[in-house]
Amino acid sequence: MNSDEAKLIALRILQENLPSLVSVDENALAKASFDGLKVAFTPSAVIRPKEAPQIGEVLKLANEFKIPVTTKGAGSSLTGGATPLKGGWVLDLSCLNTIDVDADNMLVRCGPGAVIGDIQQEVGEYGLFYPPDPSSKDFCTIGGNIACNAGGLRCVKYGVTRDYVLCLSGYLPTGEHVQWGRETRKFATGYNIRDLWIGSEGTLGVVSEAVLRLIAKPATQKTFLAAFQTDREALRAPIELSRLGIRPSILEFLDQWTVKSVQSFTGKEVFPGISPHPVLLIELDGDPDLIDKESIILENWLKEAAICSKTADSLKESEELWVVRRKASPAMKKMANTKLNEDVVVPLGKQINLVECVNSLREEFNLKIGVFGHCGDGNLHVNFMYNSDDVDETSRAVEALKLLMSKVNELGGAISGEHGIGLAKTPFIQMQFNTAEWETMTSIKKTLDPNGILNPGKIFDIFNPWDQKKVESILPWEYSHDEPKPVET
Amino acid sequence: MNSDEAKLIALRILQENLPSLVSVDENALAKASFDGLKVAFTPSAVIRPKEAPQIGEVLKLANEFKIPVTTKGAGSSLTGGATPLKGGWVLDLSCLNTIDVDADNMLVRCGPGAVIGDIQQEVGEYGLFYPPDPSSKDFCTIGGNIACNAGGLRCVKYGVTRDYVLCLSGYLPTGEHVQWGRETRKFATGYNIRDLWIGSEGTLGVVSEAVLRLIAKPATQKTFLAAFQTDREALRAPIELSRLGIRPSILEFLDQWTVKSVQSFTGKEVFPGISPHPVLLIELDGDPDLIDKESIILENWLKEAAICSKTADSLKESEELWVVRRKASPAMKKMANTKLNEDVVVPLGKQINLVECVNSLREEFNLKIGVFGHCGDGNLHVNFMYNSDDVDETSRAVEALKLLMSKVNELGGAISGEHGIGLAKTPFIQMQFNTAEWETMTSIKKTLDPNGILNPGKIFDIFNPWDQKKVESILPWEYSHDEPKPVET
Repeated sequence: MNSDEAKLIALRILQENLPSLVSVDENALAKASFDGLKVAFTPSAVIRPKEAPQIGEVLKLANEFKIPVTTKGAGSSLTGGATPLKGGWVLDLSCLNTIDVDADNMLVRCGPGAVIGDIQQEVGEYGLFYPPDPSSKDFCTIGGNIACNAGGLRCVKYGVTRDYVLCLSGYLPTGEHVQWGRETRKFATGYNIRDLWIGSEGTLGVVSEAVLRLIAKPATQKTFLAAFQTDREALRAPIELSRLGIRPSILEFLDQWTVKSVQSFTGKEVFPGISPHPVLLIELDGDPDLIDKESIILENWLKEAAICSKTADSLKESEELWVVRRKASPAMKKMANTKLNEDVVVPLGKQINLVECVNSLREEFNLKIGVFGHCGDGNLHVNFMYNSDDVDETSRAVEALKLLMSKVNELGGAISGEHGIGLAKTPFIQMQFNTAEWETMTSIKKTLDPNGILNPGKIFDIFNPWDQKKVESILPWEYSHDEPKPVET
Repeated sequence: MNSDEAKLIALRILQENLPSLVSVDENALAKASFDGLKVAFTPSAVIRPKEAPQIGEVLKLANEFKIPVTTKGAGSSLTGGATPLKGGWVLDLSCLNTIDVDADNMLVRCGPGAVIGDIQQEVGEYGLFYPPDPSSKDFCTIGGNIACNAGGLRCVKYGVTRDYVLCLSGYLPTGEHVQWGRETRKFATGYNIRDLWIGSEGTLGVVSEAVLRLIAKPATQKTFLAAFQTDREALRAPIELSRLGIRPSILEFLDQWTVKSVQSFTGKEVFPGISPHPVLLIELDGDPDLIDKESIILENWLKEAAICSKTADSLKESEELWVVRRKASPAMKKMANTKLNEDVVVPLGKQINLVECVNSLREEFNLKIGVFGHCGDGNLHVNFMYNSDDVDETSRAVEALKLLMSKVNELGGAISGEHGIGLAKTPFIQMQFNTAEWETMTSIKKTLDPNGILNPGKIFDIFNPWDQKKVESILPWEYSHDEPKPVET
C-alpha cells in the first residue's frame, strides 16, 4: 500500500466511523487551508468533533495511517500555527467550546474551542476574572492560547496563559487519553508535561479540556495617557514604577512613528497642539482606595518624566485615551498589503536598545516600521509594513527583519513572547538554541510523536513566509467597524 | 572492562582532572550517603564544584562510564530526593551559592547552592521580595527548590517556585551546556524545557544557575489566629475569604488533634480557657491602608465563623500567634521516632473530605496523625508518627498511609504538592497516572538520559522507605532552640 492509498483508506474509515463530523467539500477545505498568516495549503478533510473522545478516535486512525493532523480553533494564529502545511486532516475543535465555572474552587473548565472573551464574560458573572487577554480575545480560543502560551496586555501584572492553567486533558498522537496536572494549586508529582504541552503549538498532543485558575475581579480601573520627550524616557517606566511600588495592570508603549501614523489615520492629534511623541498608556486596577493612592504617585512621576499627560475620570474618557492604542494596528494595515507583527521580548532594561535598533533599520532600509506593545514585560511588537508586490521593498523588509531578530538574540531576548513560532518565525528559531538544546527539543518531538503526525513542519523546519503568495481573504474579525462586514457564505 | 573496573577508571580520571573537588574519605562519603529521609546508601565519591563548567566535566565523564550521579544541595529533602540510592557520585553544589541581584530588571541570578533565606535577605536589601518560603528556607537551596518545585506558606497568594523561575542554565547528562528560557517575562519560542526540568528532581539535567523574577516587597503584614467549632467551619475560609475579596498571604490550618499535641508540648493553651479546637493562622500583607480595610472584613467574618480570635497589634504579638504553627512539627516529633510528612494536595473544596478521612484513619488504626498546613491552596500536610521499632504500629501506619493516598487520588488530588516524589512517595505514584501518561514520562527520561545516570531510582522505581533502617543522625537544622547543638566534627 503506498502512501496515497493509505490516505484514501484512512479517509474512508474516518467517514464511516464519524460521518457527521467530516467535511471534504471544496469550500470547507478552502476555509481550513489557512489561518491569520494567510498562507494556504489544502487539507484532505476537515473534522469537527462534538465530543472529546472523538479526538482520540481521529488521532488513533491518523497515527495508524501516518496522516498529518493540524489542530485548529478560530484560526487566528498570526504565525501559521494552524496552517495544514503538509495537507492531511484539519481537526477543528471550535465546537468543543463548553465553559463550566466552578466558583467555589475559583476555577473554570473549558473545551479547547471556548473563546477567551466568552470565558472572561462567563466567569465575570461570578465576580471572577481570567486575566490573559490577547488583542484577539473576542475570537481566539483557549486551545490556541495554550498552544502558543498567549499573553496580551495585562501580563505585566497578571502573567500569561501558563500562569493560569491548572490541568490539561487531552490525547496523545496514538489517540490515548491523558491528563496533565490536577485541579489543585500545587503539584509536584512526576514530570510536568502540562507545561511542556503549553507552548508546544499542537505538536505534542491535542487538548480536549483545560482547567483554568481564576482570581477575584478587580473592583475598578483607571487609565492614564502620557507623552514623553524621547523613547528612552518613556521606556524607563517599567523599572521606575516598580521602584515606586506601583504595579500597573496595563503598561503600553507606542513609539513616535506609530503615534504619527495613528494621527494621520484618525485625523486627530493625540495631545492637541503637541507634535507626535512616544506615549505610554497606563492602567491601574484593584481596590479603589489603593488606586487613588497609586494615582497620586503615578501622576507625580508623570509630572517629572513626561511632557504632558491625561487621566481619565470616566469610562468615556478612558475609551478616548485608548484610541491611540486601538488604532495603531488598523493605521499600519492601511499603509501596505503586508504586515509582519513580530512579538519579540527582551529584558526590561534592554527595550531602549531594541527601539534604537528599529529606528536605525527604519532609516537605513527606508521602511515603514512601527513599535508598540507591552513594555511592562519587555514584549514590544515590531510591525513591518510592506507591499508584497514590491520585490525590492519586500527584500528590504526581510533583510531588516533578520537584523532585528539577531539584535533580539544579542540582547538576551526571545524572538516570540506570545505568538509562538508556527511557520512565520522558523527562519529565526535556530539562532536561539545551541545544538544540545535543539536536539533536546527535537528528540522530545520524535519520542512523543514518532510518526510525526501532529502539526508537521511547525517550529522546527525552516519556512519563509515572504516567499509565499498570500490568500486574498479578509477574516471575519479583520473588518473594521467603519466597513460593512460581508454576509458569510 | 566490567562495570567495577569502569567505575575505578572513571574515579581515577575524575581525581586527576578535578583533584581539589573530589572527596573519597569515609567521613565525607557517610555525610553524603543520606538526606532528610535518613535512608543511607554510600556513594563512591563526593564532588564539590567551585565553578559551573566543572559540572559539565563531571557529567561528561559519568555518562561515558555510566556512573550514577546524585545532585545534592543542603540535603534537606524529606523524600530522599538527594539520597545516592545506586551509589556512584554525589554532586554537591552547595559551593555554587552566588546571589547576584539585578534590581533594575527585578531579578536575581543564583547559583544552585544559594540558600533561600539568603536570597530573600539579599533581595530584601533592594526593597525586593522572593516569595516562595518552604519551612526549611534557612538551610534549603534554590537548586533543591527547583528540583521539587517547592512551595511553602505564602503560595496561597504568591504561587510556587515555578512561578518565579525565568531562566535555567545547566548541563545535560552528556555534560553539554544548555539554557532554558530567557531573562524575560514572556517566552513562546520552542519547547518549554525549563518547566519540564522544574520538578524533575535532578533526573533530567543539573541546574548551574537560576534567574528568578522578583516582586516589590510588601510594605507590611498583619497576623490573625482563630479557633473554629469544627474542621468544616475552618476549612470554609479559603473559599469564603476569596468571595469577600481577601487574598491572605498565609492561610494555615491546624486540626484539633495537632492543637492538642502542641498544647501538651508547650504546656500552654492556645486560647486560654478554651479546649483545643481547629485553628487558622492568617496573615495579610501589602499596603497598610488596604490591610486595614481587609482586616475589618476579616475580623467581621471571624466574628461570625470562629468561636474566638486574636489579632496581633505588634511584631511581638504576631510571634506569639505563630507559636502554635511553629511548634506543630516539634510537638509531633516528640511523640515517636518516625514522622512521615505527607504533603498531599486536593482541590480547595475537598479539604474537608481529606480531614474527615484522616479522622477515621486515626481512630480505626489507633494512630497518631496530625493534619496541618497550607489550606489556602489545598496543600494540607498529613503527619503520621510511629515508632519504627514497633512492628505492629509501623504496619498500621503504612496501611493507613496507603488508604490516605487512595483517598487523595479519589478526590482528584496529588500525592505531593511541594516535596516531590523522591524515594518516599514512589509506592503511590503509579496510581496517579494511566499507562499512556506513565509511558510519556518514562520515555522522556529514557530519551534525555539514555544511560540513566541522573538520580537513578527516583520518582519511577518503587521503594518502601518503612522497610529501611534509618540513620541515627540529627541534621544540623533539626536541633530545637531548646537543645544545645553539638559541635560539628
